[in-house]
Amino acid sequence: MRVKDVKKVVLAYSGGLDTSVILKWLQSTYRCEVVTFTADLGQGEELGPARDKALLLGIKPENIYIDDLRETFVKDFVFPMFRANALYEGMYLLGTSIARPLISQRQIEIAEAVGADAVAHGATGKGNDQVRFELSYYALKPDIKIIAPWREWDLTSRTRLIEFAEEHQIPISKDKRGEAPFSVDANLLHSSSEGKILEDPWDAPDEMVWQRTISPVDAPDKVTEITIEFERGDAVGINGERLSPATLLTKLNALGKENGIGRLDLVENRFVGMKSRGCYETPGGTILYVAHRAMESITLDREAAHLKDSLMPRYAEVIYNGFWFAPERRMLQAMIDESQKSVTGTVRLKLYKGNTIVTGRQSPNSLYSMKHVTFEEDQGAYDQFDAQGFIKLNALRLRLGAMAGRKGGAL
Amino acid sequence: MRVKDVKKVVLAYSGGLDTSVILKWLQSTYRCEVVTFTADLGQGEELGPARDKALLLGIKPENIYIDDLRETFVKDFVFPMFRANALYEGMYLLGTSIARPLISQRQIEIAEAVGADAVAHGATGKGNDQVRFELSYYALKPDIKIIAPWREWDLTSRTRLIEFAEEHQIPISKDKRGEAPFSVDANLLHSSSEGKILEDPWDAPDEMVWQRTISPVDAPDKVTEITIEFERGDAVGINGERLSPATLLTKLNALGKENGIGRLDLVENRFVGMKSRGCYETPGGTILYVAHRAMESITLDREAAHLKDSLMPRYAEVIYNGFWFAPERRMLQAMIDESQKSVTGTVRLKLYKGNTIVTGRQSPNSLYSMKHVTFEEDQGAYDQFDAQGFIKLNALRLRLGAMAGRKGGAL
Amino acid sequence: MRVKDVKKVVLAYSGGLDTSVILKWLQSTYRCEVVTFTADLGQGEELGPARDKALLLGIKPENIYIDDLRETFVKDFVFPMFRANALYEGMYLLGTSIARPLISQRQIEIAEAVGADAVAHGATGKGNDQVRFELSYYALKPDIKIIAPWREWDLTSRTRLIEFAEEHQIPISKDKRGEAPFSVDANLLHSSSEGKILEDPWDAPDEMVWQRTISPVDAPDKVTEITIEFERGDAVGINGERLSPATLLTKLNALGKENGIGRLDLVENRFVGMKSRGCYETPGGTILYVAHRAMESITLDREAAHLKDSLMPRYAEVIYNGFWFAPERRMLQAMIDESQKSVTGTVRLKLYKGNTIVTGRQSPNSLYSMKHVTFEEDQGAYDQFDAQGFIKLNALRLRLGAMAGRKGGAL
Amino acid sequence: MRVKDVKKVVLAYSGGLDTSVILKWLQSTYRCEVVTFTADLGQGEELGPARDKALLLGIKPENIYIDDLRETFVKDFVFPMFRANALYEGMYLLGTSIARPLISQRQIEIAEAVGADAVAHGATGKGNDQVRFELSYYALKPDIKIIAPWREWDLTSRTRLIEFAEEHQIPISKDKRGEAPFSVDANLLHSSSEGKILEDPWDAPDEMVWQRTISPVDAPDKVTEITIEFERGDAVGINGERLSPATLLTKLNALGKENGIGRLDLVENRFVGMKSRGCYETPGGTILYVAHRAMESITLDREAAHLKDSLMPRYAEVIYNGFWFAPERRMLQAMIDESQKSVTGTVRLKLYKGNTIVTGRQSPNSLYSMKHVTFEEDQGAYDQFDAQGFIKLNALRLRLGAMAGRKGGAL
Repeated sequence: MRVKDVKKVVLAYSGGLDTSVILKWLQSTYRCEVVTFTADLGQGEELGPARDKALLLGIKPENIYIDDLRETFVKDFVFPMFRANALYEGMYLLGTSIARPLISQRQIEIAEAVGADAVAHGATGKGNDQVRFELSYYALKPDIKIIAPWREWDLTSRTRLIEFAEEHQIPISKDKRGEAPFSVDANLLHSSSEGKILEDPWDAPDEMVWQRTISPVDAPDKVTEITIEFERGDAVGINGERLSPATLLTKLNALGKENGIGRLDLVENRFVGMKSRGCYETPGGTILYVAHRAMESITLDREAAHLKDSLMPRYAEVIYNGFWFAPERRMLQAMIDESQKSVTGTVRLKLYKGNTIVTGRQSPNSLYSMKHVTFEEDQGAYDQFDAQGFIKLNALRLRLGAMAGRKGGAL
Repeated sequence: MRVKDVKKVVLAYSGGLDTSVILKWLQSTYRCEVVTFTADLGQGEELGPARDKALLLGIKPENIYIDDLRETFVKDFVFPMFRANALYEGMYLLGTSIARPLISQRQIEIAEAVGADAVAHGATGKGNDQVRFELSYYALKPDIKIIAPWREWDLTSRTRLIEFAEEHQIPISKDKRGEAPFSVDANLLHSSSEGKILEDPWDAPDEMVWQRTISPVDAPDKVTEITIEFERGDAVGINGERLSPATLLTKLNALGKENGIGRLDLVENRFVGMKSRGCYETPGGTILYVAHRAMESITLDREAAHLKDSLMPRYAEVIYNGFWFAPERRMLQAMIDESQKSVTGTVRLKLYKGNTIVTGRQSPNSLYSMKHVTFEEDQGAYDQFDAQGFIKLNALRLRLGAMAGRKGGAL
Repeated sequence: MRVKDVKKVVLAYSGGLDTSVILKWLQSTYRCEVVTFTADLGQGEELGPARDKALLLGIKPENIYIDDLRETFVKDFVFPMFRANALYEGMYLLGTSIARPLISQRQIEIAEAVGADAVAHGATGKGNDQVRFELSYYALKPDIKIIAPWREWDLTSRTRLIEFAEEHQIPISKDKRGEAPFSVDANLLHSSSEGKILEDPWDAPDEMVWQRTISPVDAPDKVTEITIEFERGDAVGINGERLSPATLLTKLNALGKENGIGRLDLVENRFVGMKSRGCYETPGGTILYVAHRAMESITLDREAAHLKDSLMPRYAEVIYNGFWFAPERRMLQAMIDESQKSVTGTVRLKLYKGNTIVTGRQSPNSLYSMKHVTFEEDQGAYDQFDAQGFIKLNALRLRLGAMAGRKGGAL
Repeated sequence: MRVKDVKKVVLAYSGGLDTSVILKWLQSTYRCEVVTFTADLGQGEELGPARDKALLLGIKPENIYIDDLRETFVKDFVFPMFRANALYEGMYLLGTSIARPLISQRQIEIAEAVGADAVAHGATGKGNDQVRFELSYYALKPDIKIIAPWREWDLTSRTRLIEFAEEHQIPISKDKRGEAPFSVDANLLHSSSEGKILEDPWDAPDEMVWQRTISPVDAPDKVTEITIEFERGDAVGINGERLSPATLLTKLNALGKENGIGRLDLVENRFVGMKSRGCYETPGGTILYVAHRAMESITLDREAAHLKDSLMPRYAEVIYNGFWFAPERRMLQAMIDESQKSVTGTVRLKLYKGNTIVTGRQSPNSLYSMKHVTFEEDQGAYDQFDAQGFIKLNALRLRLGAMAGRKGGAL
């Protein structure tokens, strides 16, 4: 980005050291007006200090945007994603990935409201988050200018960053002077840790890495039993109490945390081409995932369920790679949402020392037919003799193959 | 099957009451010679009594086949399937499904050896197992005659079955006189329970249902740490000790059992069109699944892994539905096996009260590059500036879409 | 079906010899009231004779249903399917498959209107049509009784059928006395021929097989140029003239016929497990298929198009197998329809002796950007340097693989 | 690339003006030794002049590599791809895409043989070919340096290019002085034209664009009938005469050309994010595609065929995007090749004015069973009554759904 080109920039601002340095660096490099945007996505930090620090760094009050986006986050991003049972690479509940499009969306809204011609973010040039932010920016405002300081500046070591902060009178809290032992991202769905002491995938993560959950070892020795109520694919209550999306997820997080649920230590493949290791905590989301699958197990038709499952890896990849605001995500969502109309009912779970155990599911839309499945006399609900024709026609192509010399499906 | 048509039949014979009744029923109905085949697939029962009982029921010694198939079962069926990380409907490790093709294969081999023109099995007309047996029979010997007594006879109640047994001097152990509270299938990979007291999916399963695993609640309060060694996608050792496939799985089963690992209470969709509820215990398999995914996480290329993941649901469905000996399974296997050539190395795990926790993975074939991923100075291994072009071209279609009025990928 | 069980049956009645025999056979076998349903799906036969014949065979006037379903057929069945570019086994435009669910739907509606407890159709036990009819019946009315005479009766040879007709005073037109040389099905979308002289797949079909199209060899030596206008994925006009769905397809059929377009001689895989050979004529549909793909080529986002393409084989299989009224078809349709919102514009085509040649496409929603693609100076629309970063990050996993000894992506 | 860094570069050299300018530009900019590589892939140009021109431009004889790669091209690249029936975006036979990996592979082999540290190509920064070349280079030699002059230099207009050529005594043939009306790429599989006069997708291509095929309008009025023989998925003969891969494709090209077969005017989606319009001629490939599908139609099992079809779009995308030398392509190829073992036999075709018409197929491995499919009495090969059970169990989930209120599969 040529430095003369930018008039006004909206910065995704956390109030921390890094984005404070970015703020000053934008002012000094681009000589443009800076608007800060700080979102509460449930990361567990107060936002007041971010406002104070922005003021201290010379941002005009009318240029400071602070929004509580927790309900929107869960309702319009987390829940649609959970309808798909999305797991990236079979394991990861996409806690960081799903937050980026919402931040980007709000940032672009602010840019349009204040007439800014640029946006900036604090993600590095090695990670997925830069991709997620920038794909969303471009998809929502194709002519936006994007500043990614970590790809542009020369503050490439901690020492230089601290020096820059000192030169520009940016307050540095004592615990930020030293190198953090790993890097953290958090929101209402999850907390992730990566880098530094976690870089060797053979080394077990230190217990201090885990910040959102008690260790299964330390979790209480007693079982907690809960029910989760669903309507059309979304959780709407716990133990019979109706809750808003963010309140519900907050409560599930507390239940998960206490019971040591939702830790994941994973080596994953980044969109930018390298492998990385992350330690993720998704306490409430892990419970929700298990419960949602159980709810679907009695309310979804078999082929509806299998079709969803066959596209889940693609859907998860789309979100992981940052294509939330892309036609393919919308098409997949349309298909998934169509399937969820009947996913209504109640699931009962036991939570215990890292385990989320389904013990019951019921639904007004249940497709489970005791009459058909029973080992007892079924009053003619099912004619066992039909199975013979079913098998014989399913076998026909295999028999014809075997007759043609391809026994056992040999090719 | 017309009764005059059958000369000699090979029966999959467990030695239990049901297959003993079938044995006699075959003799009295078809008036044909019966050959019994009993396999040790690690179900945990001695086979001596099966031989004795067959003799007692009048089977000639040369018509009694008893085989220990445990090594073949794990090496040629369980391990290939685990290379695919196969989970049916996101959850089920396919423990029953994977045993059926091996039993069928051996049964057909015996039929050909003894010149039998028919085979018989003891699966009911409502379940998946009849399909799995019969598809395999037909695929391996397309002109085989198949007798499925449960679909043919009139012994449709427990009372009638017992009466028939008594009429035919079939010994009935005391505990078999009453109705079993649920039905069990077991082999070296897993144990399943279903039916009767498990039929209502809202009722939690009674603790007595679980036979292969200690409850997580009762499992010891200390962590067990192990390593599993892999070569080309298959586990070959535990804690550095090289083990044969069946020995290895037996040891993992013991470790899983002690630590309360591998229970699953699931409502699933049967191939014959109804939903059913099963309680599965796959102690060793659960550990193996987690370990194999971790091994792949550092040894598989991203797109190789995603391609596998995208086809896993199909592969699992193929096996669940009974198409092991079908061209599509062989094609999928060829693709999967191709990917496993590099899946060699060691995974370290903690086992604790139902949890299988990965704490480390290493491989001579690792694709994880600390040099590239590091938060530290990377000596030019990765040029962060490349990310800009990467993002801009990935965003181009989204920008063109937005310019054409489709902001955010709207359709 | 036990003969006493049926009170009133709705028969899909063509007025031809076969369904007339079925009509009488139903009366004499089930001794039930018969309601006839004859649909005009554009098969090109007048429906008056069907009414007369039904009366002659003793059907009460109020029990004779004759409906012109051509507009519904094209609008609600053909067009949704063409949005998907559905080709079964890469070739077949599904002309027979797509008609069956509509016939079934109307038949069930009539059954409910007249209080019938059963339906009957004239499809044989070897083909796909029985499956398509019956799956639709069951999906729409799960307790319906189904009579499939060809699977039940003993009129298994032509001679016996003629005898039965004569015994029951069913008039037989002279040309029906002999064996037809092949069997035909037709509707507004296509005509199919199969069986008898077509059974050997090495024999070329006789020219008399083709009834809907002139041979390319006989088609005129001059090119016909047309435009087709689309709105939201559906054709709405030809040469600028707005036409109703059935009128439009009728006109395309005429254009295709004259120009020798839309013949297909195919060996395909039936759902019931065998291969069969069919000769299909889909003159208008073939033009429509080519035009629709061309319309999408400038209006669909790349990933939207690829996602559709990747699911097309599944969608085509679902329809071929008879699962139009199934959740998976509805989910796929929701996904496809979502993508079609922008598929509006005009395609220009040349028709010539079997060829359908696209020569132009334009759209108010075009995503084709001359500014970006031009070989000329592009005023900075596209920065060629971005390609370097794009390639380098796409290559990173391949380079890491090669460094780990897997050159060229070797596994 | 910093100019001092390169010692010796292998240039993909056609002998034309553009790559001659690149040759000189490399010498003058990088001051490195240049090795030229010119491949005969059947593009239809003599290679002698390329050698002369390289000598004239000062390349040492031992640095001039000229290879006839036609047989390798067809045998190891074209044929494996045709086993998959690969069509990009439903239409394009990938003629350009499939040539790039072979050129790259040979270029890297030469680089290793001569100790070069860099490679260079003449593809622009807007197209797919740069991606295909460079991904292949990196996959085969991860530390290779890549020079892409069109992304680096300032010769951005035709005028500047000509000036540079004149300054450096590069001979310019008269017809190259002016702007070419479109850009051409050719090899044994196809010829493509794009750019300039073809840029408006509403304008029909001028007849002069087509260079490889006679227009269907001008093609002879008589039908040409041929047979193609296949072994294990690959064509091995025409009209009973066994031919080497390149000879066979050359002959099919002649047949296609004469009969006006293989033209395609397409708007496609490039990997770099924009749409472009190409006019492709694939005369022999089009015939081969139709014939291969017909050969598969009687030799492939249904599910084998459907599995292939479902992955074809992904396979085509992989090749289009340049990932021939990637693990996912090798995995897909393993799966596809597994299926081709039985694809042996003969297909008979009529070629006529743009049409490729299948009229017969036969195989020693045929799965087509006349005995089963016949409309005549089938001697019990198929029991029509089996269809009832087959349908009833396939319908069961739909019936259960309808009973639960979801008629017709409604969601």
